[in-house]
Order: sequence, then C-alpha cells, then structure tokens
Amino acid sequence: MTTANICGSDLHPYEGRASMDPGMVFGHENMGVVEEVGPGVDRIKVGDRVSVPFNLACGTCRNCNDGFTSACLRANPSGQPGAGYGYPMMGPYWGGQAEFLRVPWADFNLLELPAGTEHENDFTMLSDIFPTGYHGTELAGVAPGKTVAIYGAGPVGLMAAHSAVLRGASQVFVVDKEADRLALATEYGATAVDFSQVDPTETIMDATDGFGVDCGVEAVGYQAHDQTGEEHPELALDQLVGVVRATGGLGVVGVYVPEDPQAATEQAKQGRVAFDFGAAWTKGLRIGTGQCPVKAYNRHLRDLIIRGEAHPSKIVSHELPLDQAVEAYDHFDKREDGWTKVLLGPGRSA
Amino acid sequence: MTTANICGSDLHPYEGRASMDPGMVFGHENMGVVEEVGPGVDRIKVGDRVSVPFNLACGTCRNCNDGFTSACLRANPSGQPGAGYGYPMMGPYWGGQAEFLRVPWADFNLLELPAGTEHENDFTMLSDIFPTGYHGTELAGVAPGKTVAIYGAGPVGLMAAHSAVLRGASQVFVVDKEADRLALATEYGATAVDFSQVDPTETIMDATDGFGVDCGVEAVGYQAHDQTGEEHPELALDQLVGVVRATGGLGVVGVYVPEDPQAATEQAKQGRVAFDFGAAWTKGLRIGTGQCPVKAYNRHLRDLIIRGEAHPSKIVSHELPLDQAVEAYDHFDKREDGWTKVLLGPGRSA
Amino acid sequence: MTTANICGSDLHPYEGRASMDPGMVFGHENMGVVEEVGPGVDRIKVGDRVSVPFNLACGTCRNCNDGFTSACLRANPSGQPGAGYGYPMMGPYWGGQAEFLRVPWADFNLLELPAGTEHENDFTMLSDIFPTGYHGTELAGVAPGKTVAIYGAGPVGLMAAHSAVLRGASQVFVVDKEADRLALATEYGATAVDFSQVDPTETIMDATDGFGVDCGVEAVGYQAHDQTGEEHPELALDQLVGVVRATGGLGVVGVYVPEDPQAATEQAKQGRVAFDFGAAWTKGLRIGTGQCPVKAYNRHLRDLIIRGEAHPSKIVSHELPLDQAVEAYDHFDKREDGWTKVLLGPGRSA
Amino acid sequence: MTTANICGSDLHPYEGRASMDPGMVFGHENMGVVEEVGPGVDRIKVGDRVSVPFNLACGTCRNCNDGFTSACLRANPSGQPGAGYGYPMMGPYWGGQAEFLRVPWADFNLLELPAGTEHENDFTMLSDIFPTGYHGTELAGVAPGKTVAIYGAGPVGLMAAHSAVLRGASQVFVVDKEADRLALATEYGATAVDFSQVDPTETIMDATDGFGVDCGVEAVGYQAHDQTGEEHPELALDQLVGVVRATGGLGVVGVYVPEDPQAATEQAKQGRVAFDFGAAWTKGLRIGTGQCPVKAYNRHLRDLIIRGEAHPSKIVSHELPLDQAVEAYDHFDKREDGWTKVLLGPGRSA
Repeated sequence: MTTANICGSDLHPYEGRASMDPGMVFGHENMGVVEEVGPGVDRIKVGDRVSVPFNLACGTCRNCNDGFTSACLRANPSGQPGAGYGYPMMGPYWGGQAEFLRVPWADFNLLELPAGTEHENDFTMLSDIFPTGYHGTELAGVAPGKTVAIYGAGPVGLMAAHSAVLRGASQVFVVDKEADRLALATEYGATAVDFSQVDPTETIMDATDGFGVDCGVEAVGYQAHDQTGEEHPELALDQLVGVVRATGGLGVVGVYVPEDPQAATEQAKQGRVAFDFGAAWTKGLRIGTGQCPVKAYNRHLRDLIIRGEAHPSKIVSHELPLDQAVEAYDHFDKREDGWTKVLLGPGRSA
Repeated sequence: MTTANICGSDLHPYEGRASMDPGMVFGHENMGVVEEVGPGVDRIKVGDRVSVPFNLACGTCRNCNDGFTSACLRANPSGQPGAGYGYPMMGPYWGGQAEFLRVPWADFNLLELPAGTEHENDFTMLSDIFPTGYHGTELAGVAPGKTVAIYGAGPVGLMAAHSAVLRGASQVFVVDKEADRLALATEYGATAVDFSQVDPTETIMDATDGFGVDCGVEAVGYQAHDQTGEEHPELALDQLVGVVRATGGLGVVGVYVPEDPQAATEQAKQGRVAFDFGAAWTKGLRIGTGQCPVKAYNRHLRDLIIRGEAHPSKIVSHELPLDQAVEAYDHFDKREDGWTKVLLGPGRSA
Repeated sequence: MTTANICGSDLHPYEGRASMDPGMVFGHENMGVVEEVGPGVDRIKVGDRVSVPFNLACGTCRNCNDGFTSACLRANPSGQPGAGYGYPMMGPYWGGQAEFLRVPWADFNLLELPAGTEHENDFTMLSDIFPTGYHGTELAGVAPGKTVAIYGAGPVGLMAAHSAVLRGASQVFVVDKEADRLALATEYGATAVDFSQVDPTETIMDATDGFGVDCGVEAVGYQAHDQTGEEHPELALDQLVGVVRATGGLGVVGVYVPEDPQAATEQAKQGRVAFDFGAAWTKGLRIGTGQCPVKAYNRHLRDLIIRGEAHPSKIVSHELPLDQAVEAYDHFDKREDGWTKVLLGPGRSA
Repeated sequence: MTTANICGSDLHPYEGRASMDPGMVFGHENMGVVEEVGPGVDRIKVGDRVSVPFNLACGTCRNCNDGFTSACLRANPSGQPGAGYGYPMMGPYWGGQAEFLRVPWADFNLLELPAGTEHENDFTMLSDIFPTGYHGTELAGVAPGKTVAIYGAGPVGLMAAHSAVLRGASQVFVVDKEADRLALATEYGATAVDFSQVDPTETIMDATDGFGVDCGVEAVGYQAHDQTGEEHPELALDQLVGVVRATGGLGVVGVYVPEDPQAATEQAKQGRVAFDFGAAWTKGLRIGTGQCPVKAYNRHLRDLIIRGEAHPSKIVSHELPLDQAVEAYDHFDKREDGWTKVLLGPGRSA
C-alpha cells in the first residue's frame, strides 16, 4: 500500500451508524504496488503500480458482464449485490488502511498505473471519489454546454464539479456553506453558492433566466441536515428538484440507506425519503442513483491525469503516516475546518 | 372529430380533484379529419386524416427542439412547461369530446394517417395511451430479452404490456386485481398477477430465480390505494423498488402531482411521496418520470398498426355517440366492471 | 461437445482462401457439457451445460472491459485484437468439431444453459450466428416500428431477419435468390425479395413510398457475386446504400478482409472496396462493421429461446454424427440446395 | 446581415466543380439582426440578433422531427433530402453574402443570440463550421479521456480539435502540412502533426503505445491530395483506418459527393471511394458520415461561447467589407498562406 484515503463513508461505521466487526481493517480507497500474485492471475505482475476500485467484483457474473461492478452477484457472501473492502456488509474483505491489501480477482479489479511515484495524490482519487463524482455527472446527463448544480462540496461534490467542467458544462454551481470547500469549487472552475449567505434556489434560478439548470448532482446523502444540525434526508433532493429544469436529469451519488435504525423519524428508520416526487414527476425528471461502478470510468480519468488535464488532488488537505490514523479520524469525524481529505501511507509526514 | 376517447385523467377534474373552467370542453385523446387550415399551415391539407398528440407544442422552443414536446415552453400561457387540451392548467385549449377541435401549430402537432376509416380504434390510441405506455417501457429501459413488471392494468398499463412484448421482452408481468383487465394483459402476451389472490412480490421473485425483473413500469399514480380503498401514493413505487433488480430501471408514467389539497395526509397534500428511496439507491435504480412526449413514438407505433403488428384497440370496451358522454363518464368514474376504455364519436352506436 | 455447427466462414480455410494449420481442428460454433475445470475456474462447475461464444476473450483487458470481446487484446498471441477457435489467425485454439474442446478463461467465456437437452438446436445458435445476426440489427439501429432491408439469406441474414422482427421492426425485407432460404425468411415474418425475379431496389423503394428503409444489414461479405458468379465485393454494399434512406443506419456483418491474395482485382487483393461512399455520405449514413461480441447479446437471446419467443433452429437443415463431417463439408461447400445449416454431434443421425 | 463567412465549400461552385445559377448569391454561413418577419412567425421578433444554420429546414417533416435538419424532406424542391442557401442543388434559396437574407420557417431555423455585438466573430461560427467540427467528434464517439486524430486542419478540422478538447479528450492529434493552421491547432490544445515533416501514422501509433487512437475525424473530403497535388479521395480515410484502434469510431465530415464528373478516375466520377474497407471491418470500426444538423449543437455551443469557454474565432484570418468579396474569393481559392477564414460584413475593414 502506498496510499489509502479516509472517506466520509468510513465515518458511518466509525460513528457506529453502520456495523463494523472487531479486528476488521478500514479503507476502501486504495492504491499501491503489487507484492505478490496468486496462481490464477495472468495479467497483473509483481511490481505493477495499481489503483484498487472500491467495488470488489468477480468479473464474470451477469452484472459484471453488463458493466455494473457495483452490483457484483458473486463477491459478497451475504448474497446482496455488490462487495467492497473494510465494511462487514460488503463482505469479509479487510480494508487498505494498512501495510498490505489482498485483492481478489486481481486481473479484473486492478487498474494499472505508470511506474514510479508521479501523480500519486491524483491517482489515489481513482479508487473512489473521482469516479464517484464523475458518475454523478453521468447519471445527471452532463454534456457540453449544459448547466449543472451540485449540492454538497465534500470530496465527492468537488470531484463532480471537476468532472462537470472537464465534460464541457457551460456553468457549474456548487452549493455548500463551508468556505474552504467552496474555494476549491471555484478553483475547479465552478460558481460557488454559499447557502449560509444566499438562498441557493433563488441564486441559481436568477442565473439561469428562471429556467433552472439542466442537470443536478446530489452529493450529500441521507444525513443532510439544516443549519441547526437537524437531519432532513429529503433536504438536498427537494432543492435539486426545485432547481433542475423540466426534462432535466438528477444524479444521486450521496449515500442513502435502506434502513437506518438510529434515524430521527420512523420514515427515515425505514429508509423512506419523503421528497417532492410529485414536482419531480411534473417536470419529467430522470433520477439516477447508487454506487459508482469505478471500472466504467477509472481508465479514462487516469489518462486525463497523465495528460495533465485532471487534477483531483487539489482537495487533499492532509497527508499522514499510518500511525497517525487515529488522530486523523478524530479530526475528520468532527468535521474540523480544513480537514477535507486525508491520505495515509508510508513516507507521509504530518 | 371522428373519435375522442375518455381518459382516466379526465376523471381528475370530473371528480373535482383537478380544477376545471365552466364551459371548457374535455378531451385530449383526439383524432379526426382536417376541415380547415390556417394561413400558417403548409404541410397539413384539408381532408387529411390525423391523430392529435395530447401534448400541444409549438415546435420551435428549446424543449420542442430537444424532443420534449411534453414540456413546450411557449404553448402554455401560465408559463409552466407543457400544454394540452381540455385542462385549464394545461392552457386555454378546449378538448375534443366535441364535433370540432382547434389544433394550434398544426404542421408540427398532427400525425398523418392513411385515408379512410381502417384501424380507427387502433389509431385513436396514438394520441395518448399507446405512446404513454410505450414511454413507460422506454424510461424503464426495456430491451429484447429483458424481464418487465408493470403495476396497474388500466389502459396505460395494458399499453405498456403490449409495448414491452413488441419490444422483445422475454417476460412481462402485469399486476392488478381486476379480472377483465388481467385477461387483456394475457391477450397481449403478458403474465397476469392478481394481487387479490397472490402476493405479487413473491410471485415475481419466484419466477425470476429471486433476482427480480430488469425493468418496472408504474402505471398507477398518486391515487394508488390498498384493498380497503385507502390511498397510499407510495404503494406501487414501493413494490416496484422491491421487485426490480439491482441495476434496473423504473419508468413512472402513472400521474403524480406537485400538490393535492384533497389528499389524506399532509405529505400527500404537498406532493411528497415517502417511498423506499434508500432501497432504490442501494440497488442503483434509474427512475424516469413524467408525461410522454407523444411525437417521439407515435409515428413508429402507427406503422406497427398499419403492418398488423400492434393492436391497441383490444382494450376498447365501449363505443358511444357523443350525446351519451354524460352516462359514459358516470359509468367510467364508478370504475364499473368492464368499462376499460370508452370511445366517443359520430356514428358510434351504444 | 454435444453440438458443433459448420459455419460459412469455415469454408474460407476449407477452400484455401484463408490459412489453416495441418492438424488443427475446425469449429467455432460450440456447445456442450463441462467435463473438467482448471484450478482458476470458480464460477463454472463440472456438469454445467454451456454455450461457447466464438470469440475467445480474456475478460480483463481494456477491450473486454468495454464489452468488445471481439477485440480481446490478450488472447491472440499474434498481437492482433480478437481470438477464436479453429483458425490459425485467431490464435492456436483448436475448434470444437470434435469430442472435447478446451475453453480458456472459462468463467468469463461460457454462458450457462438450463440442464438437459431441451432447445439443443436453438441454443447451439447462441455461439455465433444468432448473436451475429442480432449484431447486424444493432449496428443498423433497428428499433420498434422501423423498416429494415437485409441482403443475404444465409444463416446470418436469416438470424438478422429473426432478430429484426423480435425487436419490433414494422417491415423486414430479405434479399436473396435461393428459394429455400427465402422461404425461411418468410417463416420468420420477413418479406422475401428474390433478386433473380425482381429488381430488389425497385421493390423496396416502391414498398416504402420511395423513401427506402431505415436500416440495412449486409450479410453477404467480400465474396458477393453477381448472377454470373463473378465476385464484386461492393455489390451488396452498393445496393444497401441505395435502399437505406437518408439518416439511416447500415450494419455490416458479412465478412470483409484486409487482404485477399486470391481476389480478382488488385483493389480486392488489398481489401479495398470501391463502394458508393459519396452517395452514403450525401445520405449521412452511419455504418457499423465487424465481428459480433457474442457476450453482448447471448444471455438475452438465450432467455428469449427459453421463453419460447425465439426459434433460431428453424434454419437447421442437417444433423449428422461427427464421422460424417467430411461429406457434410463437401455438400455445404458446393452450396447444394437445402444445405442451409449443418449440426454435428454425438447421437445425431444422418 | 452583420456577418457572412466564406466557406471552403463555396469554392466547389466557384471553381465550377459544383453547379451554380447565374445571379444566385453565395453564402451559407450567416448571422444578422432581424429586419422583418412574415405573418407565420410568432417566436422571432424584429430586432433579434440571430444565427442562421446552414441547413434550411421545415421543422415539421419526419426527418426534422427526428433531429435530422440536415435531411429535411420538404425544403428542397428537388425532392432530395436537405436544403440550404447559396447552392442550386440545395434549393432556390439565395445566400447571405449580401445585405439581406430571407430565412424560411424562421421560428424553427433561427438561433437567438444576446443583443449587441459582443462575440460577433465567435457567434458567426455557429452557422456551420463550429457545429460541423463538433459533429465530427460526435460521429466519432469522442468522450472524456479518449484519444482523437483529426485529419485536415482547415476551419472544420480546427473546430473539431476545439470541440474534442472541450469534450474532455485526453489527447488530440491534428494532421496537416500548413504551419499556420497547425499553429492554430496547438492553440486549441491539440498536438500538431506535420505530415510534410513526419509520417503521421508512425507518429500517432508511437504516441499511443501502438494501439492507435479511439476516435478519428475526417475533415478533408473528396479532394484529398498527396504532396504532388494529385487527388486521392481515399487518402485521408485510409490513414484514419490505419490509426484508429479496433472498436473505434470514425466521423467523416469532410465532403464526399455522389458524382464528380471532373474527377480524375472513373471510380471517382461515380463517387466511389476505394478505401481500406476490409481493414476497417476487421477492426470493427463505426463510421458516421454526412452534413451536420446544426440545430443539434448550436445552442449549447453558443452557451459555451457566452460563458467564455469556447473561442472559435481564433481561426479568423480576415475581416472584409462586402465589396471586397471578389478579391477575398481569389485569395482564398488560391489557398494562399494565412487565408484561413474570411468574414464579410458591413463595417469590416480590410
């Protein structure tokens, strides 16, 4: 392992909101150099520098055949579609916030990278958040000349903004209230909308002659909360239904869960989200959801990094050695200012 | 006007659940022969037999250019996208349950039909429900070999079943409780699932080796109700989220409204639908919604009728002269057995 | 091996027009029951009944990831994209006109079938010609309501006709001069056009109000010849460019080769085909070419067979035991009347 | 008329290689301000600043409905699909290298622009070459991360390069031999390949690890000629077939004609192009052809100009008053160095 990132979704088990097994290792944003290969591996070689998609997939089931590595039918012993590292519900696979990582079906799962250490902090975004942000723009139908609104300027929202600009969107709005994150959105060429200062709906409608944007990306998830901190899972969805124009598309890459026993309301406990579906229907919106199938995008995004056109590492706020992971989780979980994205790995200095 | 159909959505204003203006004529499923053309018309000629799409569209705005005639930006004086006949909220255009109908932008809106009277009852389905059912299968991603579940065996659901079979689906389930409608589903080559007799989820999961179907079509809408008659707008959506497999598609052509002052709950009044969104997200479903842009499909569906491959008129239960419309509405509104689809027009006999 | 078919492209090496190695076994249309699996196989089990796609693919290279198993970058030691069985230029893999067949990367390549012997003659078409015919319709953009012209009523052309009807085409023309093959086209619901009796261009243009068809499928290939037997590689292409309407699509699944040393003209030797490209450009045609990536279609086509909606075995003319293969090749190579499709396998009787 | 550009295809009739009627006005790249509207016009207003797509289309025929304004079935009295300005074979419509231009079906054809004079030289590219270059990238399947080779650095090739970069291509090669044009390609972010200095095939294959590019754009046309000036219509196509990788896409926006009585060879006179079709088939290439349907792209490209992300005017070499058109044609026809793109209009100074 040369780099393993901490992801916002690591905080779900960290906070006890998702289950975790004692002794399991966290970490699904992984990259490194191959130390050893099993007997069934004939493509990947020892010494290859590789990125590890967070979805662990068999490569031969029906869903993998169709490109949905996010819903592999064989990798998760639970029988649920989809497997991954560092989450009991995604299978028994330990994560990569460690010195080594075992990658099943390595020929299928691993993406080869140029040897060396160049672009390390950019490439490490290929395992999850860069493709996930891109997936949001894909589900939303972003295309050259279109306008886009992204709710949430966390790492995924920022990667969605970067992706939307790379894909030729004519204007990209990013809505959040954290100044440091909004500054990164601006660096990626987006228009920052600070909802602690302005009404985002009004701002976006005004800037689009009252029509709204062509595409919306939800990068917040079920823990969306208002300014008092109260959770309203429908909050970002409602606003997006409001600002996306009739005939538009909505990509939901913020995480929603089928049940959430610790949620505030009975509906939320059951994974129900009472958003403005009637308004969405009237507009004829198309809503794409779910985890990103990383392999669908990581090769092309890698090539954009190599050619100097994509720079996902701008969001890195901290690089730390593995033995400082405990403190890093603590800061990150408290959403402390400036802790946008933490990378762990040997040779990193605090 | 040679034929005008009564549509389930005519019942919304009929029941006072949607607004209606005194003196406005009902009817958005229209066909006839051209009596007269305005000076700006250079394609359509007097004497042409034509089908009138229920969406009234200008043909030159941005949404029309993009094929979204269901969201025309110019035809509705209210400024809302989308216009139509026989509904105050869709603009000031009178409907076609009458002797004559005025069709603006006739060159753009009208679909020409072969002269004569052949296929009259099939062609009359081209103005709304055949394309609308087809649209449901399009939004759901139906393709050759795929499996499909359709909830609701009303006219739109039956047209969705007919469309799914025409498109090469390998198995099509239609879920309803009305025996006569389920019999029609069977005639169209679908597998009828009577939810008053069996658990539809269990039936469909069993028939698909526990995987569920590839595609789901919602043809029920916000007035979905349980067997006691109580409305639960999320009822059909929830069941579809349950039976559509991970990575699948869901087309929602049943009508949902942005507000419904007479609904039973506060959420429903606001057009909110608290369905299992968390489960849908976990499965990575893609959900398409909204009114059908009829012009996207009516020409090809017409050609399938002419070539003898499509037979939408099987669902016609009654053909009546215009002066029996009042009684027809009464029977239809009471959902009397066998009143599946009513056609009105000169020369029709009770 | 339970069934191995003889394919028209087996005749290229048989006639010495493509190279063949002494001792290599012919046969790329294969199905059977698994006798033994290697140590790297964890999905397929001994005893599984399976269909073997003619493209042999690694499942983990870039092209396989993108669904182009027809252009696998790793399976062919020559370095050329694409590998297969029973052809020296497609790699060192022996064919299946034998008792046993070795299938590399079996988990990826094999399609599982229901146990038993039902649908044997239908399923055997899943290895090549049914998907290949379907691929022609996909490249041509066939969709519900469209009109289609297919040139060539050999097995692939007939499978294209069957596919086009399954996909909801409103009218399908099949052009050939062999009465028995045209009769099969009619059985599949197509309109037979016998070019020894009528001018096909005129016939098709007349039947489409002078507009031509939406889609064309070329199922003839570089050995297209006129009624005198003289080869004109551009013959079928030219006619298709003529009958496909402006804005239409053309799928070329007939085989063309980059060089053909025994061809009649210098251009043909170099793989050049001087067809009416200027006319195609003026019409704005889209032309798809190449070998079918079988895995893109075989699962859905299998399901259509199981559900009783697809019947590719109608074209089978002969079923023979393996020891009569020599005579079978002789008859087939002479294009004897009625030798449409030959199946070889144990238990087959002459 | 505020701006009318001279286009390379104006040279076909200028040189007598395409027919021209005495008295007809040249010019199909037009923009201006509306002076007067006819009685059937209800969207466009006097005073609107507008861009005029070079395809003149009715907006209500089947092809226009499907988005193929390049193949309008009603606008050209000859009965051929497609109409335009300033070409007898495209209908009797005079061109815009004049003070005024008549635009039929103005509501459908005209694209509205922001009032004023800002971006005049960028917007004037919206009538033809910017969308045409973009169309080449669309036909070729350009998408984020892909590699692209464009043959021909004339105005259309340069616009294709600009488009490919805007769409997120990871590397774009432009092949030509004119230093000034290659310099513009570099300005747009492409890699210039000067075929008078290097072998373009070798250069591109080397730069892509021997795989070739994902996408190719042909922006040369039937007058492709070698360094001695001899015409070889298949020249650019052959090279593109060579450098586009197996499974790739090829967009041909260079003009090919169905007949060319003055061509050098019998085949060329008939519009036949004997390119390496066998090699293309073996690679499984997809080849899109034909004139650009401008309305499919001009709105989004306009928005990219307004937002400062697209700069098509970089290629403008000369701005002249209308009365210097004769000299301009003379220079342009001689392919004099530096005469890349000429704009004509009132207030322009030599």
